[in-house]
Amino acid sequence: MSARLDAQMSFLNEADKLKNVIRATTLCDGSRHENSGEHSWHIALYALVLAEHAPDGVDINRVIKMLLLHDLVEIDAGDAPIFGDHDIAAMEADEAIAADRIFGMLPVDQSVELRAIWEEFEAAQTPDAIFAKSLDRFQPPNQNLMSNGGSWTDYGVSYDTIEARVGSKIERGAPVLWAWLSPKIRAWFLH
Amino acid sequence: MSARLDAQMSFLNEADKLKNVIRATTLCDGSRHENSGEHSWHIALYALVLAEHAPDGVDINRVIKMLLLHDLVEIDAGDAPIFGDHDIAAMEADEAIAADRIFGMLPVDQSVELRAIWEEFEAAQTPDAIFAKSLDRFQPPNQNLMSNGGSWTDYGVSYDTIEARVGSKIERGAPVLWAWLSPKIRAWFLH
Ligand SMILES: [Ca+2]
Repeated sequence: MSARLDAQMSFLNEADKLKNVIRATTLCDGSRHENSGEHSWHIALYALVLAEHAPDGVDINRVIKMLLLHDLVEIDAGDAPIFGDHDIAAMEADEAIAADRIFGMLPVDQSVELRAIWEEFEAAQTPDAIFAKSLDRFQPPNQNLMSNGGSWTDYGVSYDTIEARVGSKIERGAPVLWAWLSPKIRAWFLH
Repeated sequence: MSARLDAQMSFLNEADKLKNVIRATTLCDGSRHENSGEHSWHIALYALVLAEHAPDGVDINRVIKMLLLHDLVEIDAGDAPIFGDHDIAAMEADEAIAADRIFGMLPVDQSVELRAIWEEFEAAQTPDAIFAKSLDRFQPPNQNLMSNGGSWTDYGVSYDTIEARVGSKIERGAPVLWAWLSPKIRAWFLH
């Protein structure tokens, strides 16, 4: 029991480092960039509050667990900004190595269980993962609207780019949320 | 539908302010104080990982929801450090006013539902709330051990004070966790 708890606590202490991974998105007040720890809290709260907008068959408790875990690999692999240019294959390889190390700190049964939830999120094929991904994409544009530009300004993106890279993924998992958000983004770009 | 989603999004944008509420505890690396948003993520992750150490009858999904919501009132009322001196009645009055305003941003049915979860946490009478409270108390001493003192040093507390103010609450909800932690804290104070 004690060795098991030792391993779990090593993992939870390591997870603390996610609070030092900085994202492209700022807080709503624009005062600073947000980190991946507080971002993970915020979108888990999104899931809790917006559960009724999930398609039928989504288990919101699993979605919340997925969102609590979804960014842990960034402790080693860093955050890849949505509007940045990335070598996707290299990034996925880095994240797999990070997952080996970080989930590998847990007792074996739990390591397998939680890593499978993360892999399900990454694969974005199940209803839970598709909805979780849509929330992960839905939060940043809301922050950008509040902060009057945020990462849109920093990366010099257009409405069409947002629709292609972000809107398509929000719409896939949560069409109601994209229908609500897209006119607001369009209006911001016309202001 | 749209007015309902407008209200939910106002609440979620307001919740962003929890990332600016600074706690007495630092990150494990001691580099800065943690904020209540990232703290909420961290202890929800504690719940996910440490669920097996909860007493029988605890619903871990409800505990996670409780922990995601538990500090929102701090947006208005601020964080009350565990080792500080507080006028408890005044603090509870401030938090009730904060809860009126913040949960009151949600659609009425959801406002009632989520506020009830927060009140259950505060009352610390149900198995879910008692376990959630124990995790809220269990994380700071682990951070302090990692950062070599943290808020213990800042507030000049002794082992006995920690046992009385923190240990008693961890033990009530999660005796296994306190049995694991208390010798580590004792050893730190003897070092
Ligand atoms: Ca608190």
